[in-house]
Amino acid sequence: MNEQTHSVAVIGLGSMGMGAARSCIRAGLRTYGIDISPDSLQALSEAGAAGVSRNCQDFAERLDSIVLLVVNAAQVKQVLFENELIDHLRPGTAVMVSATIAAQDAREIESRLADKDLLMIDAPVSGGAAKADQGEMTVMASGSDLAFKRLQPVLEATAIKVFRIGKEIGLGSMVKIIHQLLAGVHIAAGAEAMAMAAKAGIPLDLMYEVVTNAAGNSWMFENRMQHVVEGDYSPKSMVDIFVKDLGIVTDTAQSLKFPLYLGSTAYQMFTSASNDGHGGEDDSAVIKIFKGISLPEK
Amino acid sequence: MNEQTHSVAVIGLGSMGMGAARSCIRAGLRTYGIDISPDSLQALSEAGAAGVSRNCQDFAERLDSIVLLVVNAAQVKQVLFENELIDHLRPGTAVMVSATIAAQDAREIESRLADKDLLMIDAPVSGGAAKADQGEMTVMASGSDLAFKRLQPVLEATAIKVFRIGKEIGLGSMVKIIHQLLAGVHIAAGAEAMAMAAKAGIPLDLMYEVVTNAAGNSWMFENRMQHVVEGDYSPKSMVDIFVKDLGIVTDTAQSLKFPLYLGSTAYQMFTSASNDGHGGEDDSAVIKIFKGISLPEK
Repeated sequence: MNEQTHSVAVIGLGSMGMGAARSCIRAGLRTYGIDISPDSLQALSEAGAAGVSRNCQDFAERLDSIVLLVVNAAQVKQVLFENELIDHLRPGTAVMVSATIAAQDAREIESRLADKDLLMIDAPVSGGAAKADQGEMTVMASGSDLAFKRLQPVLEATAIKVFRIGKEIGLGSMVKIIHQLLAGVHIAAGAEAMAMAAKAGIPLDLMYEVVTNAAGNSWMFENRMQHVVEGDYSPKSMVDIFVKDLGIVTDTAQSLKFPLYLGSTAYQMFTSASNDGHGGEDDSAVIKIFKGISLPEK
Repeated sequence: MNEQTHSVAVIGLGSMGMGAARSCIRAGLRTYGIDISPDSLQALSEAGAAGVSRNCQDFAERLDSIVLLVVNAAQVKQVLFENELIDHLRPGTAVMVSATIAAQDAREIESRLADKDLLMIDAPVSGGAAKADQGEMTVMASGSDLAFKRLQPVLEATAIKVFRIGKEIGLGSMVKIIHQLLAGVHIAAGAEAMAMAAKAGIPLDLMYEVVTNAAGNSWMFENRMQHVVEGDYSPKSMVDIFVKDLGIVTDTAQSLKFPLYLGSTAYQMFTSASNDGHGGEDDSAVIKIFKGISLPEK
C-alpha cells in the first residue's frame, strides 16, 4: 500500500451501496462508483466521486480496494469473474464482499480471488439505508489480518461497528445468515400479530403502541409495523429480499442438517406473499397473506 | 369511595404480585397479601403489609380493591368463586384481573362479578419482576370508567404506563394474548438462531453481541439469550408459562378462525421442551430441544 489517498470502488449503488460510497467520499477517500443505473451514477458523481461507470474495468488498475454491495452471490460472481474484473486488478487489491451470501459461496469466491493474489474479507453488513448514509453500518466480518489492514480506511469510513468473527472466510456470512433468520422471523411474527389484532378488532395503532412499550418488541416490529400502521408499502426493503435471504438460511440449515422450525415457516410466509404478487413491495407486506381483515390504508 | 386510605389486597405473591404489593405499600396504600406460600407471606409482612393470610376472606369486608396476579383463569375462578370470596366483598369493590387469560374467560368472570355488584377491569400486565418491584408495570386494560376510577390509586402505585384498550371486557386480555404471541415467538426464534450458531461453530457470546447491536434484535433475544450465553437456566419465567400462554394464543386463534403459522410452531417448540423435562426451567431452555450441539455451561 502507498501512503497516498486510498482508492476504493463501490460496486452496487443501491440503498446500502450509495450510503457507503457517500461515506467514503466524505472520509476523503478517492471513491469510484459502479452501477447499471445512470441515475445512481449521476447522483454519486454529483456527490464528489472520482469516477463513475457501468464498468469497473475502467478504474481497476488504480484501485486499492473494492466494496461489493450487490444483491446476491450470482451478482458477485458475475462482476468479479464473468466480467473478468479480476484480470484487471493489481495483485494485493482487497475485496470486501458485503452481499448476503451463503458461507460456501464466500469460500468459493475467496479461493478464486486468491488464485490472482487478491485479498478478501467476508463482510456482510446490517443497519439499513439511513445508517449506511451516515457511515454507520454494522459489519460482521471474517478474513486475514492483512486483508483487514488493507480495508481499514474503508471500514473506518463506512462502519460504526466491525465485529471480527475470525480469520476463516465463511464465518462472516454464517453470522449474517443467522442474523437474517431472526430478522425475517421477527417481521413475519409482527405481521402475524398485527393481522390477528385486526381480526380481533383491536386498533392497530394501539396494538403497535402497546408492543413497542413492552417485552414483545423487536427492532423489526418497531421499524416495519410502523409501515403497516401507516398503510405504506413503498419498498424500503422488499419482500423478495427476504425470500432470497430466508432461502439462503434454509439452504444453510439443510447443509448443516439443522432443523429450522420458525425460519422455514417464515420463509414460506414471504414466499407466499411474493407468489400473491407482493414481491416488490416493502417486506412488511408479508401481512397481506392474511385475508379477511381490514388493514390501514395510506 | 371514602376519603381515607385505599385498602387493596394483592392475591398471588409470585414474582409480579410481590412487586406489585410492595409498590402498593410504598405508595402508602393499606395493603394486604394473599398467597399459599408462608415464606412469601412473611416477606410481605416484613415489608409493611397491613395483613397477610392464606385466605382472602379474613380481610374481604375492609377492601376497596383486589389485584389478582395468579397464574391462570382456573386460579382466578377458584379464588373468586370456589373459595366464595365474592360473597364477602362489599358491593362496589373493584377487581383488577391481571393474570394472562383468554378474552372469553375475562368476560365470564366479569359477568359473575357483576351479579354481585362488583366492578372489574380486564388488566393483564407486562414488564417482568424487576419492573413490578419498582412499581413500573405496563398494564393493558379494558373496563368501565367507574372501575378504572376506583382502581386509580392501585394503578398509580404499580404501573408506569396504563394502556386503555376500551370499555369492553376481553379487549385487555386479547391485546395481552397477541403480545404473548410475539414474546413467545421471539424467545423460540432466539433459541433457534443460537442453536444454529452453535451447530455452525460460531461462538455464542459473539453471536449475541452481533445480534444485540443489529436489526435482528428483540427485547426477548437480549434478555433471554443472555441466560443461554451464561448457561444459567434457573427460572426467571418458566418454559411451562409459555406452554400455557401460547396454548391460549392457539385457542384464541382457533376461535377467531385465524391461521397461526409462527405462533403454533413456537407453541410446539415450548411443548417439546416441556415434554423433554424442561418445563420448570427458565423459558430460554427451549433451546434444549436442539440436540447435537454444545451449549455454554454455568
